[in-house]
Amino acid sequence: MLIVKIGGGTGIGIEPTVADLTDLIHAGRKVVLVHGASGETNLLAERLGKPPRFVTSVSGIESRYTDRETLEIFEMAYCGKGNKALVEAFQTRGVNAVGLSGLDGRIFEGKRKDTITILEGGKRKVLRGDYTGKVERVNVGLLTLLLDHGYLPVLCPPAASYEGEAVNVDGDTAAAMLAAALKAHEFVMLSNVPGLLRDLKDPASLIGRIPAKAIEDFMPIAQGRMKRKLMAAAIALEGGVTRVILADANVAHPIVSALEGRGTVIE
Amino acid sequence: MLIVKIGGGTGIGIEPTVADLTDLIHAGRKVVLVHGASGETNLLAERLGKPPRFVTSVSGIESRYTDRETLEIFEMAYCGKGNKALVEAFQTRGVNAVGLSGLDGRIFEGKRKDTITILEGGKRKVLRGDYTGKVERVNVGLLTLLLDHGYLPVLCPPAASYEGEAVNVDGDTAAAMLAAALKAHEFVMLSNVPGLLRDLKDPASLIGRIPAKAIEDFMPIAQGRMKRKLMAAAIALEGGVTRVILADANVAHPIVSALEGRGTVIE
Repeated sequence: MLIVKIGGGTGIGIEPTVADLTDLIHAGRKVVLVHGASGETNLLAERLGKPPRFVTSVSGIESRYTDRETLEIFEMAYCGKGNKALVEAFQTRGVNAVGLSGLDGRIFEGKRKDTITILEGGKRKVLRGDYTGKVERVNVGLLTLLLDHGYLPVLCPPAASYEGEAVNVDGDTAAAMLAAALKAHEFVMLSNVPGLLRDLKDPASLIGRIPAKAIEDFMPIAQGRMKRKLMAAAIALEGGVTRVILADANVAHPIVSALEGRGTVIE
Repeated sequence: MLIVKIGGGTGIGIEPTVADLTDLIHAGRKVVLVHGASGETNLLAERLGKPPRFVTSVSGIESRYTDRETLEIFEMAYCGKGNKALVEAFQTRGVNAVGLSGLDGRIFEGKRKDTITILEGGKRKVLRGDYTGKVERVNVGLLTLLLDHGYLPVLCPPAASYEGEAVNVDGDTAAAMLAAALKAHEFVMLSNVPGLLRDLKDPASLIGRIPAKAIEDFMPIAQGRMKRKLMAAAIALEGGVTRVILADANVAHPIVSALEGRGTVIE
């Protein structure tokens, strides 16, 4: 089993990933694809006059403040545009893809945090009506059913709260939990950088190998989103995944290339 | 088996339908829900500065001209906002809903009409780059799988073209084809009117019963969308469905009420 997460940041193309996965699936590999759509969400939010608001919790974690209106914009970008573009790309190549969110069949489940305490201008402030959460449980039944019958599941946030509400969750963490729950051998995380870089401006500073036990040592090097990706890698490895690879989505054959060891391999 | 289609026009509420179906499902009925989101699509298109364009083909059929940008808006409104709102409403009531479009698993399949000839100001005009189509085939495999494992499928357009592209299709027709393909006993179509009215302004002019063989005779009475609904009813009945009921979505217990015969019953 192979789990692939493709980021949804601006400038990440889906074509190389879709083409590569199509070949792997036709060759008999079982795959689940998880995707983001954060770039599209920001764009849509701006166009609808509801610009994204990123907040930093008192514990230092940055997230998108997701009130009800933002949740709907999020669902339109993720489940509408992003998800169906991927499903369509696979269907035109003869792969029978099925697009789902974590809400469908409660695939991703967790606690909703409707109130967050943030720091703004040095002051603590409580925000209510937030639809964010954290995936704590993966219900694999629906995915196993689809995989056993030859479908390719194409998954994205939101998740379901324990009360059944849609909640915005981090896609990298969700994909890592999924990789562990499905006992995947490999978990590939694609973004618009070639992996973990010592110097963001220098692709040659790529860190090629990280022993699973040493992930913590590399945390200080990771900037922004990359920190979440390392944390997700740790979750997957602790959950029994053999290899996690952070690699570039914008190259020819991004998956095959990652599986051959190009990128940052954590094992 | 019961197939319910709920329209997506402005002013149609989902709550009564969700509550009613939840009870029926808990009582053991197998259901597939198909929904629209045309009101939401129009609203979103306006807000994004891409107002909807309705065209009339030379054969007199009105449809939404769907270029690539409109298709994406359509997917955001249908698969993003509309579909996930329904799935969430069911999940909060303990019904394990799974939201899908006709593109997923190629549930709805048909020919794409990328060129349409329309009449505009009395002149014939050819429009290219259209992503509309007509459902010609329903692939029930995925739905049967979900139903057999206790999930509630919540379905909407787009469909898949034979080449795998996403195509905008009429939801009433798609639901009718589905009802026939699944050999449903009953097919309920809910909208914001109580059924077929002789006089649109007078709810008391409701036509309560139409024998299946007499549908054609009632076509001249049907205005606008209602004409499509009668045509869809004919497709379902020809396909072996026993009863088609056109009823009001905005009443308490709209499904139970329809099944008890309130609305326009065609059989």
